[in-house]
Amino acid sequence: MQVVTLLSGGLDSTTLLYHLLDDGYEVYALTILYGQRHSREASAAKRIAERAGVNHVLVDLWDLKSVLHSALTGHAEVPSPTAETPDAYAQSLQSTVVPNRNMIMLSIAAGYAYSIGAHAVAYAAHASDYAVYPDCRPEFVQALEKALQVSLDDSSFKVIAPFVHMKKAEIVRLGKLLGVPFELTWSCYCGGRKHCGRCSSCKERHRAFVEAGVEDPTEYETEPII
Amino acid sequence: MQVVTLLSGGLDSTTLLYHLLDDGYEVYALTILYGQRHSREASAAKRIAERAGVNHVLVDLWDLKSVLHSALTGHAEVPSPTAETPDAYAQSLQSTVVPNRNMIMLSIAAGYAYSIGAHAVAYAAHASDYAVYPDCRPEFVQALEKALQVSLDDSSFKVIAPFVHMKKAEIVRLGKLLGVPFELTWSCYCGGRKHCGRCSSCKERHRAFVEAGVEDPTEYETEPII
Repeated sequence: MQVVTLLSGGLDSTTLLYHLLDDGYEVYALTILYGQRHSREASAAKRIAERAGVNHVLVDLWDLKSVLHSALTGHAEVPSPTAETPDAYAQSLQSTVVPNRNMIMLSIAAGYAYSIGAHAVAYAAHASDYAVYPDCRPEFVQALEKALQVSLDDSSFKVIAPFVHMKKAEIVRLGKLLGVPFELTWSCYCGGRKHCGRCSSCKERHRAFVEAGVEDPTEYETEPII
Repeated sequence: MQVVTLLSGGLDSTTLLYHLLDDGYEVYALTILYGQRHSREASAAKRIAERAGVNHVLVDLWDLKSVLHSALTGHAEVPSPTAETPDAYAQSLQSTVVPNRNMIMLSIAAGYAYSIGAHAVAYAAHASDYAVYPDCRPEFVQALEKALQVSLDDSSFKVIAPFVHMKKAEIVRLGKLLGVPFELTWSCYCGGRKHCGRCSSCKERHRAFVEAGVEDPTEYETEPII
């Protein structure tokens, strides 16, 4: 069965790619640029798709940044949060929300799926992101699938989100089992030569490796304090 | 109340813009290019927004055409249908479906709405398009609204589609009452200097004026046979 999967080049979407291949899917990887500050993720995605030997399309929608306001599209500084309490941590990440990002990207993925005769899209939503990102919650997956079924007039159309009840550390453990090349993945919001180690995405990446008991192969500028 | 409305530059979305203004909304018009063959619609949209005195943003997502296959994005010839039967007519229009177009554009509109603190998006879906375009049907409006409410964590978020039960001729009648500058609107799929008069969009435009009993101010290369 064919599936279009969103591949950002991060460790979650890369593990999903390997998981779908392991499940026997014919995978079409789709990377969408939406005006991010940098393109480190895009080059990571390209290398990962090559390594995995799957079809890969990169779509550059840089002009989206004119309507989607976020720290990630240059409308504010990327925060370096200090997590005094979970609520304060979540609050500090609000500026990294790109409004409606997953719905936009999955809608495009579904249009691509229709174009190639596929009946499913996949993305790596997971439980560690619920607090800040509503478009990673199970009720979103369900509501989106319904809307896509109506929009495409295809009641068999599926939104595959197998990590939706998993924590990021569990994804790392699964990735380890599947032989995911973690060293090719990119999580940092800041886009330097190495992962910065200070932004929330670097901290969550490192924390997931530590919690999973898997060696973190990432080179950080500053060792993340987690 | 603020609303982001999709403005293609055609007569339906232009009439909707005037209708929303008449209803007292603060209107933000959004035109999205998705790799169409031509940009006549975009320049029409710009002039219409200027005439109406509303905020207008044009977002150029030309790279979408690499994943959305349609006659309108250059993947086939635009048909010049001869309507022997309604079914044959609908069949000949299948190549003009841009897969998931409305869902993609409304998802972006919703991201923009969130960015400016608005809680509603609007589009000009109408009953004359049901047969060919599932994303113009009332059940799509409902499913999309639900998905957006979850995605944006905003149960008050609305998808406004006041023409969803109207025929195109009724939209023309309403536009006439509202003083819509029909002469600024552009419907033709082919993008010449004048409307071609042969593509399905020109035919439906002209038919709507005739059925509405409203003078069609459009200059056609070939008088549409309806």
